[in-house]
Amino acid sequence: MRAFASDNYSGVHPDVLAAVAEANVDHAPAYGADRWTARAEELLREEFGEHASCYLVFNGSAANVLCYRAMCRAWESVVCPATAHVNVDEAGAAERIAGIKLHAVAAPDGKLTPALVVAQIGRIGDEHAVQQRVVSVSQSTELGTVYSVDELAALADCAHQHDLLLHVDGARLANAAEALGVPLRAIASDAGVDALSFGATKNGLLLGEAVVLLRPGLADGFVNLRKQTLQLGSKGRFLAAQFIALLEGGLWRSNAANANAMAARLARAIVDVPGVQITQPVQANAVFAVLPPDATPDLQRDWHFYTWNETTGEVRLMCSWDTTREEVDAFAGAVVEACRASA
Amino acid sequence: MRAFASDNYSGVHPDVLAAVAEANVDHAPAYGADRWTARAEELLREEFGEHASCYLVFNGSAANVLCYRAMCRAWESVVCPATAHVNVDEAGAAERIAGIKLHAVAAPDGKLTPALVVAQIGRIGDEHAVQQRVVSVSQSTELGTVYSVDELAALADCAHQHDLLLHVDGARLANAAEALGVPLRAIASDAGVDALSFGATKNGLLLGEAVVLLRPGLADGFVNLRKQTLQLGSKGRFLAAQFIALLEGGLWRSNAANANAMAARLARAIVDVPGVQITQPVQANAVFAVLPPDATPDLQRDWHFYTWNETTGEVRLMCSWDTTREEVDAFAGAVVEACRASA
Amino acid sequence: MRAFASDNYSGVHPDVLAAVAEANVDHAPAYGADRWTARAEELLREEFGEHASCYLVFNGSAANVLCYRAMCRAWESVVCPATAHVNVDEAGAAERIAGIKLHAVAAPDGKLTPALVVAQIGRIGDEHAVQQRVVSVSQSTELGTVYSVDELAALADCAHQHDLLLHVDGARLANAAEALGVPLRAIASDAGVDALSFGATKNGLLLGEAVVLLRPGLADGFVNLRKQTLQLGSKGRFLAAQFIALLEGGLWRSNAANANAMAARLARAIVDVPGVQITQPVQANAVFAVLPPDATPDLQRDWHFYTWNETTGEVRLMCSWDTTREEVDAFAGAVVEACRASA
Amino acid sequence: MRAFASDNYSGVHPDVLAAVAEANVDHAPAYGADRWTARAEELLREEFGEHASCYLVFNGSAANVLCYRAMCRAWESVVCPATAHVNVDEAGAAERIAGIKLHAVAAPDGKLTPALVVAQIGRIGDEHAVQQRVVSVSQSTELGTVYSVDELAALADCAHQHDLLLHVDGARLANAAEALGVPLRAIASDAGVDALSFGATKNGLLLGEAVVLLRPGLADGFVNLRKQTLQLGSKGRFLAAQFIALLEGGLWRSNAANANAMAARLARAIVDVPGVQITQPVQANAVFAVLPPDATPDLQRDWHFYTWNETTGEVRLMCSWDTTREEVDAFAGAVVEACRASA
Repeated sequence: MRAFASDNYSGVHPDVLAAVAEANVDHAPAYGADRWTARAEELLREEFGEHASCYLVFNGSAANVLCYRAMCRAWESVVCPATAHVNVDEAGAAERIAGIKLHAVAAPDGKLTPALVVAQIGRIGDEHAVQQRVVSVSQSTELGTVYSVDELAALADCAHQHDLLLHVDGARLANAAEALGVPLRAIASDAGVDALSFGATKNGLLLGEAVVLLRPGLADGFVNLRKQTLQLGSKGRFLAAQFIALLEGGLWRSNAANANAMAARLARAIVDVPGVQITQPVQANAVFAVLPPDATPDLQRDWHFYTWNETTGEVRLMCSWDTTREEVDAFAGAVVEACRASA
Repeated sequence: MRAFASDNYSGVHPDVLAAVAEANVDHAPAYGADRWTARAEELLREEFGEHASCYLVFNGSAANVLCYRAMCRAWESVVCPATAHVNVDEAGAAERIAGIKLHAVAAPDGKLTPALVVAQIGRIGDEHAVQQRVVSVSQSTELGTVYSVDELAALADCAHQHDLLLHVDGARLANAAEALGVPLRAIASDAGVDALSFGATKNGLLLGEAVVLLRPGLADGFVNLRKQTLQLGSKGRFLAAQFIALLEGGLWRSNAANANAMAARLARAIVDVPGVQITQPVQANAVFAVLPPDATPDLQRDWHFYTWNETTGEVRLMCSWDTTREEVDAFAGAVVEACRASA
Repeated sequence: MRAFASDNYSGVHPDVLAAVAEANVDHAPAYGADRWTARAEELLREEFGEHASCYLVFNGSAANVLCYRAMCRAWESVVCPATAHVNVDEAGAAERIAGIKLHAVAAPDGKLTPALVVAQIGRIGDEHAVQQRVVSVSQSTELGTVYSVDELAALADCAHQHDLLLHVDGARLANAAEALGVPLRAIASDAGVDALSFGATKNGLLLGEAVVLLRPGLADGFVNLRKQTLQLGSKGRFLAAQFIALLEGGLWRSNAANANAMAARLARAIVDVPGVQITQPVQANAVFAVLPPDATPDLQRDWHFYTWNETTGEVRLMCSWDTTREEVDAFAGAVVEACRASA
Repeated sequence: MRAFASDNYSGVHPDVLAAVAEANVDHAPAYGADRWTARAEELLREEFGEHASCYLVFNGSAANVLCYRAMCRAWESVVCPATAHVNVDEAGAAERIAGIKLHAVAAPDGKLTPALVVAQIGRIGDEHAVQQRVVSVSQSTELGTVYSVDELAALADCAHQHDLLLHVDGARLANAAEALGVPLRAIASDAGVDALSFGATKNGLLLGEAVVLLRPGLADGFVNLRKQTLQLGSKGRFLAAQFIALLEGGLWRSNAANANAMAARLARAIVDVPGVQITQPVQANAVFAVLPPDATPDLQRDWHFYTWNETTGEVRLMCSWDTTREEVDAFAGAVVEACRASA
């Protein structure tokens, strides 16, 4: 299968699989009381800061829901872009499992701004109204855009000025850090982020994400929440070994770098093709583009990718850690062909 | 580490890991729309019947909670033994995530009987009282005991006569089937079970359990519940490949057989040691025994296992798919020594 | 206190209080098993149809939440106007207590249309997305506007064509029926409504609302939901007696008629005052108007009413069953004075 | 109807109804921002202490659920007697609405003891297990028994020593205080109680209960919880006026005194009747007794009361604020007759 469908169509990085195999010796304490988990948490703290409390979980939806459970009291709510994964792709888990209202804000490029946030804050102290508590953004966003360090810091400042917290859905945080050329902590604690979901599945794992709690107090009782939310794996070493492989030698960054570079390459290759219109800044590992009406079904005979907007003909083209130049070039060539045929 | 602590201290069976590696080629559709998942579900249906609806999830607590969510309306409740994992080891997930009341019934051997169930049923139609809807038992139980096919069928009959459903927490269903010398379906649909959690992690996987819904109608909307309950993995092929390895050649049974045989061997080796008292019938892969007061700390210097009851000195000794004769014999020898020293 | 603040600033209609006193004889079965409750339910069925299942509850938020609990499965959602009471004035009860996602739709006059609804429906059958199940509208709306019978029927048709249900938050249903000059059932079953909250507190009761379930099947288990949602009163006769007083002689309509008439009178009296701008059609018992900046604080020294929009200076003026012509005329006179002073 | 069925079969005390009528003048701010509510809260503080935070709600189930929501984090649990109203008569609201696990403890007289509580505490700090947080007792109990001041203080001490809190379901707290001859605060703060539900409906109101939070910090955000849990009445003055009537002149105590005295009178009148066996100490307003098999249906032709235990023939006979000597004597006479006929 040749696919620009999703970065989670990709497989497991060989180093990650090797790490799993290496961990597969002997017995080890269950439920995270093993040395691999201790080491993975240590490596996460090296990335995010010694004050970070880090927890491995199974998937990204769970990481988000757990962050909200840790950050919000029963009557508190979350401001997020309308395009947020938690708003549109988690089957109502935020509302049903975390019990949290989401204020979904229209944001054409998938990014919140302080002004958009402030417009959602109101009726503080009014018992009839939910009380906004969290600003939740995706970095990089579901539209392939990236908050600059300053933009993120401005959101954090805005949040804190209004006694809110900043959460980052970092399913693709590695892609953002790489895109910005900064260490992970630059778009975490250093920017004022209070809690984040650090994605790893898309970036080369079998499965596994981390919750990173940066604000003192948020970790209180978190292990109980994780267990109750069905996210404590018994053979924890196999989750942890993957993270060790991802973090120890900077694999997270090289994987992200490849995905980003391939998206940039793809964008460059098709941006000037007649009939193609790139619709979002290509800042991480996604290319959003409008293709001519006939081109998409033509291309989808050989390539797997998703139509994002049926009305406009916009498609989403995702690159991943294992996307190759040859695939990009072949696909770009096919785009040229399909657009010519469609013209 | 030499351990009789838990069957989830064990590692991954080599065939399972090989299957993961073999699945790690190319891109594959995410979220279970891949051919491995289709094959795993097919193999599960071969075991549990063509009418079975089978769903892969991350862990056993989630499988249980999802079964309850599928089986119960908001005001319905679950009757289970007080020792049930869902009652004592899932951090309140049944109540908080499924919203379900558990009627915890004292059962010294970890097993419900029709009489114990009937004693919990009452006030049917009374809007002030929760309405019992599910009987939930573990097979094998948390105390290492096994329901016979007839015992299970009697529970199912009892449940159905009272318009209840029978759920089986089968975290160790393989061990029970092997202990009874029957196919899985004999202690599933054939015995009248309506839904079950089929454990695989403890039996040789990295992680992975299956929800098996046997009663028509229960599967309605289940994929939505699974996603919402944070149990839909994105790179589904790697969950599925493990199940294929476990199911295709009967590995599930040989793994369980070893665990059971080792427990039996261990029990035989220590049953007559002065000071040792076996406290539960050894029917699957667990040995429960009272050891002399000083023997336990003495043994725990070299071996990892859990004290079950601080007051009585009862310990739990779990065997797993990878427990060897040598380990059992060495441990049994150590028990003899420790008991002698303690006498 | 002289107030146009809210229709629930009003007191209890004397006939209602008399009915409570009359019911206060002897003992009566608790929890609704009394003859008053039977009679109230009978009268509700006379209004809403013999097929209607009617349940008394304490307040309107509860009626709404209970309707959602009865109508939605765990992964289903509700489309409502952004201004809906359930969206902005119920402290997140829809999300936390019913576990339901609300799709809040911008609607300047507080009213949904089929086009607005259809734009919210999508990804049917996609397990990652909540599935829209209910269209929920307020009649009359929080902005004092009223759906015509045809508008409501069009919404019901639209909903049903998409396999959705129509819920009406009828906190002021009486005002709407009176405004339209139709019986209650014309804007309930006859228009295709599936479930509704029938308000009575604002219309002259101490407290009390009714849930009216019109679609077969919705009432299944509803008494259990009501009890669990903490809405089953023990001395049910005193809730029911109030409904009897409200329904038996058409008091609900005359009360609503007065409130509506007073709002119309007030609107007529101030519409041409320089500086006053009526901002919504005055169709029920509310007048929304922009007043000059200084006029509002000036008026609020003597009269209680709420500013709706701090930015625009829009105020909300509510009339109730007990608002008198004298109050309206005096207030309108004060508005004239305040506007002149402010000019 | 002549009834010993339940104290909530009783009507409204005339003074309470008069207070409602007196409050029915003019407009008043809604949602508790009225002078009656302020006065009711002041009177509650006079009873329970200046530090008490007091909130009016609709019914007792809601008061209990709200206390639990205020006292427990998501993974914390409640220890209560198996007979507790919250355990058996609230339709699973504790589990579904508060999300809380109840540890139901067998207690033949309906009363917990420190020893029973301690036996439920365990696995503190274990993320797999719910963490006990609240001891919840009913005063007087569902079996008509009363905790002495010392018994309650011992429970509070026990709870606090284990870092738990003590909640009292005081649906009949007035009866208990009267039975013990102490002020309410003697069985509230003075005994170490942290939060309680103060019942008023059964003691002469139309409806209305109070949540009384005694421990600093518990009230934080409570108004938001009350609104979200659907317990904030709009025309709050009519709830509050009833409490004023109940509290201002000591009506709560005289009403309770009558109920208790009538129960004592009834017990005295039947205790020596051949065939009658009083089964619980008669300490408040309930008499539990086994009657001869034929006597109960015989008596129920003229009198309404409930069979408590079908197997043993035990019945529950409740007296209320309005039970008269004549009723008691007539019923006792009927018991004598029925027992004679049955002999």
